[in-house]
Amino acid sequence: MSANPQGPLFTKVVIIGVGLIGSSLAINIRKHGLATEIVGVSRSADNRAEILQRGLADSVTDNAAEAVQGADCVLLCTAVGAYGKLAEQIAPHLSPGCVISDVGSTKGSVIADVAPHLPDHVHFVPAHPIAGTEQSGPSAGFETLFKDRWVILTPLPQTPREPVEKIEALWRACGAMIDKMDALHHDRVLAMTSHLPHLIAYTIVDTATQLEDDLKSEVIKFSASGFRDFTRIAGSDPTMWRDVFLSNRDVVLDLLQRFQEDLVNMQRAIRKGDGAFLFERFTETRDIRQSIVDARQAGQFIPTEGNTDDASG
Amino acid sequence: MSANPQGPLFTKVVIIGVGLIGSSLAINIRKHGLATEIVGVSRSADNRAEILQRGLADSVTDNAAEAVQGADCVLLCTAVGAYGKLAEQIAPHLSPGCVISDVGSTKGSVIADVAPHLPDHVHFVPAHPIAGTEQSGPSAGFETLFKDRWVILTPLPQTPREPVEKIEALWRACGAMIDKMDALHHDRVLAMTSHLPHLIAYTIVDTATQLEDDLKSEVIKFSASGFRDFTRIAGSDPTMWRDVFLSNRDVVLDLLQRFQEDLVNMQRAIRKGDGAFLFERFTETRDIRQSIVDARQAGQFIPTEGNTDDASG
Repeated sequence: MSANPQGPLFTKVVIIGVGLIGSSLAINIRKHGLATEIVGVSRSADNRAEILQRGLADSVTDNAAEAVQGADCVLLCTAVGAYGKLAEQIAPHLSPGCVISDVGSTKGSVIADVAPHLPDHVHFVPAHPIAGTEQSGPSAGFETLFKDRWVILTPLPQTPREPVEKIEALWRACGAMIDKMDALHHDRVLAMTSHLPHLIAYTIVDTATQLEDDLKSEVIKFSASGFRDFTRIAGSDPTMWRDVFLSNRDVVLDLLQRFQEDLVNMQRAIRKGDGAFLFERFTETRDIRQSIVDARQAGQFIPTEGNTDDASG
Repeated sequence: MSANPQGPLFTKVVIIGVGLIGSSLAINIRKHGLATEIVGVSRSADNRAEILQRGLADSVTDNAAEAVQGADCVLLCTAVGAYGKLAEQIAPHLSPGCVISDVGSTKGSVIADVAPHLPDHVHFVPAHPIAGTEQSGPSAGFETLFKDRWVILTPLPQTPREPVEKIEALWRACGAMIDKMDALHHDRVLAMTSHLPHLIAYTIVDTATQLEDDLKSEVIKFSASGFRDFTRIAGSDPTMWRDVFLSNRDVVLDLLQRFQEDLVNMQRAIRKGDGAFLFERFTETRDIRQSIVDARQAGQFIPTEGNTDDASG
C-alpha cells in the first residue's frame, strides 16, 4: 500500500456498480490512499460478498440512496442505461459539494440522463476511461487496467475547476492520461474508434453463429485467420454494449450508414471484378495503419501455442 | 543447419514468388535439408538481390520457364491472380514426376486456373498455409512462421498418394499441422474465417479514411478502443487480397449478403431502440468466442506501452 503523499483526495467515495471498471478503480483508490472510506453498491448479493471478500470496499449495500449520504465523491460505474434512474434515486441524498463522476462510454446521453436530476450544490464531471478487457464483474478488476490509458473528461461549461481537477487527479493516480473535449465530439470519435467496430464485430460473429454446424466447427478450428480478432471484441459485456448503442444512437447510425455505402462499393467491385478499385482501397487503408504504428498505438499480438496468425489468407 | 534424417525430399525446388511465405519456406527448406538445390524466381531485381544476399536460394532468375527445367518440385508463391499465366508459361518445361504445389488462399480458383495447363506427367497438390503477418516481401520471412499453424491440402481425386505425402512432409518439417479437405469446402470455411473479416476490416478503415481531418487524427489517437484491431488486419498485402476476393468471388458475395442482412437487423434494432434484440444477439456471440478459447485458438493480446485496450467502450 503506497499512501497518497498529499493525503486522500476524498473522504468517502461511493462506487455504484462494481464490475471490471468499478473494481479496478476501488483497487487503485485503496492502494494509492485516494479516499478514507470506500462504499460499494451492487444489486447482486453474490457480487457484494465478492467485493467484501476481495477487500474492494469498506462496506457494501444494494441501496444507492443510502450509500451516497455524506459522500464527497460518487462514481457511477454501471452500464450507462442505468444512470438516469440512479441519478434520480440518489439526487435528494447528495451532500453539498459532492463530486459526481462516471465511466460511461457515451457522454452526450449520460449528461442528458444525469444532469437534470442533480441539485445545484453538487458537481458533475463526466468521464470515460478508454480501458477494458473482455472480462466483467468484480473479480475481473486489476490495478494496472488504467495504466497509460486515456481517460476523456467532458466537463460541463458551468462546472467549477476544482472538482474537475480532483477527478483528473484521481485518474492520474491510476496511471491514466487525461484528455478533455466536448461531449458530442467525444461521442463522434468513440463511435468511429469503438462503437462501430464493436457493432461490426458482433454482427460478423452473429453471421457465423447462423452457419450450418459442420461449417461452424471448422470456422472455430481455423478462426485464427482473421475471424478470431472479431470474436474477442464480440466477447464484451452485452449489457454495456446494448446501452452504448442505444445511448449514442444517432451518431452510430450515421457512421453505420457511411460504412454500408462503402461496403456496397466493395461488393460491387468484387461482383464486377474491378481489381483496380479494390487495390486502390486496400492501399489507402495502409496509411491509417502506419499512422497508428507511428503514434505507438499499434499493440502487439502474441499468438499462443497452437495458434495461427491473423494476416493470413 | 539440421539436415533431414531421411535425406532431402526433393533434388531441385523452385520457389516462384519469394515474398513472406516463399522466403519463410526457403529458410525452412534450407535449414531442414529438404532439398539439394533451391531456385528463387522473382520479377523484381531488388528482390532477387535480396534473396541472394539473405542466402534464401542458390540461384535466382526472373524466368520461371527456365527455372523449372529439371525441377522435381515447383512451389507457386505469388498472389493467386498470377497463377494461371505462370502455369501456362512453365507447363511445357516441367519434368515428368514433378510435384507442383502452391500457397494460395483460395483453392477452387487455383485448381481451375492451374490444372488445365499442366501435363499428365506432373502432379498438382494444392495447399494453403494459414499463416502470415501484415509484412510482405523477401525480407519478411522467418523460420517459425508455420510452426503450429494449419496447412490445408486440397488434393485432386486423380492425384497419386506419393506427391501428396511429399508435400505433407515438407510442411510438417516446417512445423505445420496438416488438414485435408475438398477445395470448395476450403473456400467456404476460409471465406468466413478470413476473407469476409478482411473485407470488413478494409471497409471500416476505408470509412475512417474519409472522415474530416480533425476527427481522423483523434481516431488514430484513440484507436486502441477497437478500431486498431481492424487496421492491423487491413494492413495486409493489397495485391494478395485483391486476388483473393476476385478468386473466391461467389462464396464471398454470398457470405457478404448474409452479413449485410444481419447488419440491417442490428441497424433497425438500434433505430427502434430494441434493446432486447441487441442483448440477445450480443449474448449468443459469446458462445463462439468461448468455443475458440476452449479450442486453444484464442491468442493473447499484449498492448505495448502507451496503449489502451480493446474491449473498452
